[in-house]
Amino acid sequence: MSSHHIVRDDQEPALIIANGAACSSELLGQLLEWSPLVIVLDSAIERVLELGIKVDVLLGDFDRGFDPEYYKDQQFPLEIIYAPDQNKTDLEKAFDYLIERKIPMVNVVWATGKRADHTITNLTNIVRYRNALKIVIIDDHSKIFLLPAKFEKWYTASTPISLIPIGIVSGINSKNLFYPLENDTLTIGYRTGSSNHVAEDGIVTIEHQKGDLLMMECLD
Amino acid sequence: MSSHHIVRDDQEPALIIANGAACSSELLGQLLEWSPLVIVLDSAIERVLELGIKVDVLLGDFDRGFDPEYYKDQQFPLEIIYAPDQNKTDLEKAFDYLIERKIPMVNVVWATGKRADHTITNLTNIVRYRNALKIVIIDDHSKIFLLPAKFEKWYTASTPISLIPIGIVSGINSKNLFYPLENDTLTIGYRTGSSNHVAEDGIVTIEHQKGDLLMMECLD
Repeated sequence: MSSHHIVRDDQEPALIIANGAACSSELLGQLLEWSPLVIVLDSAIERVLELGIKVDVLLGDFDRGFDPEYYKDQQFPLEIIYAPDQNKTDLEKAFDYLIERKIPMVNVVWATGKRADHTITNLTNIVRYRNALKIVIIDDHSKIFLLPAKFEKWYTASTPISLIPIGIVSGINSKNLFYPLENDTLTIGYRTGSSNHVAEDGIVTIEHQKGDLLMMECLD
Repeated sequence: MSSHHIVRDDQEPALIIANGAACSSELLGQLLEWSPLVIVLDSAIERVLELGIKVDVLLGDFDRGFDPEYYKDQQFPLEIIYAPDQNKTDLEKAFDYLIERKIPMVNVVWATGKRADHTITNLTNIVRYRNALKIVIIDDHSKIFLLPAKFEKWYTASTPISLIPIGIVSGINSKNLFYPLENDTLTIGYRTGSSNHVAEDGIVTIEHQKGDLLMMECLD
C-alpha cells in the first residue's frame, strides 16, 4: 500500500465545491490533493468540469433545467444524488450526506462571494453541525470554522483573528490576543470581535461558555 | 439652476466606496451619477483613482503606511478625515460622518467579497444605524438593507427575496411570498428566510415585531 493510499481514506477531510465565487486554482489544487471524496453542488459542475477535476458525487435539486445524467459518462464513476428538499440548502444536504457516510471532516470552497444571501447563510449555518461534522469554509482570503468551548492553537505574532458571534456568545476569555476578551459577551450586529490579532508568537487560547462563535482567519 | 443642480443635493444618497471586492463599472457608474457626495475608505483610494472617479472625502485610520496628503493635489478639493478609533470599522466611521452632516441616506459598494470577516461585519453592523441612517449595501449580485417594522414594496413574480435575521427576529408575517411567514421566528444560523421568492406581480408585505431583519434582493 503506497503512502498515497494511506492518506486517501476517510481520515482526511472530504471536499465540497459549492456554487459561489471560484477560488484560486492553487488553493483548489492543494485541497484536492488530499481529499478522498469530492462533492460538487448542482450547476457548479459546469464550472468544475472546465477545470478538469475528477468529481465523486454530484448533489443538488437540479431545478435549473440541466440534466445531471449528462455528466455520468464524463465522470465515471459519478454518484448522482437528487436532493429536492426545499427546506435545506444544497450545502446542508451535502453535510447531511457526509454525516450519513460517517465522514467526520470537510473543507468547503466556493461557498462565499457572488450572492450575499448565500454567503451569509453558508457561513452561519455551519453552527448547527457542531457535534456532527467538522466544517472548514475556505476562500482566497478566509478560513472559517466553529470554535469549540475551549480552542488552542499556535499562531505567529500579528496573525489577524476575527471572532464572529452567530447570535449572542457569552463568557468569552482569550489569551494572547492583542485586544483581550475577559468574560466578554459578543452580539452579532452590535459587538463583534472582528479585526483582532495575535499578540506574540505562541499559543492563542479562546474559551466561551455559551453560544456559537466563529473563528475567521483572514488576510487581505 | 439646472436640473443637474437640483438633484445633486443631500436629498440623494451619498456613496461610500469601501475596501472589499470591486463591483462592475456599470453598477458603480449608475450610483455615481446621482450621488452628491463620494466617500472612499482608506487604501481603497488607490483602486478608485485608477478608475478616474472624483472623490469628495477620504476617510480612514491610514495605518498601512500610505500618505493621504498625496491624494489632495490629485483630487482638489478633497476632504481628508483621519479616523483612528480602533473600536469602529472605517465603514462605521463613515456612517457616523454622514449622520453628523445630517445626510439621511447612503449606498455602499465594495463592502462585500474578499475577507469574509469584513463582509459579515459590514452586512450585519448596519442594524445599529436603524434610526440614524438609511443604508443600502450593493454589489453585483445583491442589494441589502434593514427592514422597518412594516415593509411594503412592489415586485414582479419570482423575484428572489432572502430574509436574514441578525440574531433572533420574532412576530414575522408576510404577504405575497412563495413560502409565507405567519407569526414566524427566525434565528441566525438555525432558521433563516433565505431563498424565498415573490409569489405574483404586486405588493410584498413583510412585518416583524422584534429584532433586526435584513432584506437581501439577490440574483445569480
